[in-house]
Amino acid sequence: MTTSPLLANLIEALRCLPGVGGKSAQRMAFHLLERDRDRGLKLADALREAMQRIGQCQRCRNFSEEALCAICGGASRDRQLLCVVESPVDLAAIEQATGYRGQYFVLHGRLSPLDGLGPEELGLPLLVQRLGEGEVEELIIATNPTVEGEATAHYLAQLARAGGIRPTRLAHGVPLGGELEFVDRGTLAHAFGGRQLL
Amino acid sequence: MTTSPLLANLIEALRCLPGVGGKSAQRMAFHLLERDRDRGLKLADALREAMQRIGQCQRCRNFSEEALCAICGGASRDRQLLCVVESPVDLAAIEQATGYRGQYFVLHGRLSPLDGLGPEELGLPLLVQRLGEGEVEELIIATNPTVEGEATAHYLAQLARAGGIRPTRLAHGVPLGGELEFVDRGTLAHAFGGRQLL
Ligand SMILES: [Zn+2]
Ligand SMILES: [Zn+2]
Repeated sequence: MTTSPLLANLIEALRCLPGVGGKSAQRMAFHLLERDRDRGLKLADALREAMQRIGQCQRCRNFSEEALCAICGGASRDRQLLCVVESPVDLAAIEQATGYRGQYFVLHGRLSPLDGLGPEELGLPLLVQRLGEGEVEELIIATNPTVEGEATAHYLAQLARAGGIRPTRLAHGVPLGGELEFVDRGTLAHAFGGRQLL
Repeated sequence: MTTSPLLANLIEALRCLPGVGGKSAQRMAFHLLERDRDRGLKLADALREAMQRIGQCQRCRNFSEEALCAICGGASRDRQLLCVVESPVDLAAIEQATGYRGQYFVLHGRLSPLDGLGPEELGLPLLVQRLGEGEVEELIIATNPTVEGEATAHYLAQLARAGGIRPTRLAHGVPLGGELEFVDRGTLAHAFGGRQLL
């Protein structure tokens, strides 16, 4: 298909990107080689640095290359509000769409026994410890409105109540079966503002 | 927007890819970090190797990490047919869509005096030397059907005739003003098969 093994290798490697098939991978590779080698090299560096050095914040499990992320390490965010999300991309969506000024906890998944995802894998012991510190007054449960997300929300609400903390859930408005990541900003902001006591 | 500077840097760097805006760059970065770090690292290596080591074939100017690409260095391709294209992506499109078994010459552009692209920049001295070797009988001119591509084709046809070589042009069928890269395979194969004497 191509006369250069390194080029064939690059086209294949680009297909690890979501939404990139063979034809767009080829266009990307040719574009970088023909017009943008400097930025191609910068992308290589950025990828290597990010893949190797980004870990999890010790407190909220969000992506961070520091022990504490900027939200947990700073003093500007409200410590009475804690919002639980399935993934860092949901956290980013809430940050971008709403005026939320509280803190977060990232599950990196949802309860799914068949996939081997239980309370340990989702970091729930760390969350329980956090709820026991006495600062959190409201646990905003922003798992996705899927079957597993709802089951996870139910479990988290029980944890909150057991600790004397008010559990809330995003208001209806998030489409059933949808993923937070793909909800438009207005809907997400509305649902966030109208969150309800569970 | 994100709490990790390395992540913000990766999202920005991904936007060098054609067709990738802020939203898809973010999705790509989160996907790799959350689910596919190994392939992210492989992509970093593939990018670095390709950007640094892929140069041009000495004979046809196609992308190659060797002095001669597989087409020029091998013995299996017909040396009487020489197809001139504007860019390596056009060469790839012809290879994928047609049964062409001849050789190629890549201009890496088209005649465009205002952009400082003249015969030297397009490697035409190398092409003239090749035409003078006596092997080529037909020069298939596959520049894009744009104003500059047509002007370049006209210039190349004169070079061919001056060397006693038959210049041909892809048959109509390639849409006017279109780019070869985006023509569907069937149309391109048809146009290639029906190329005409200039
Ligand atoms: Zn944190
Ligand atoms: Zn070659």
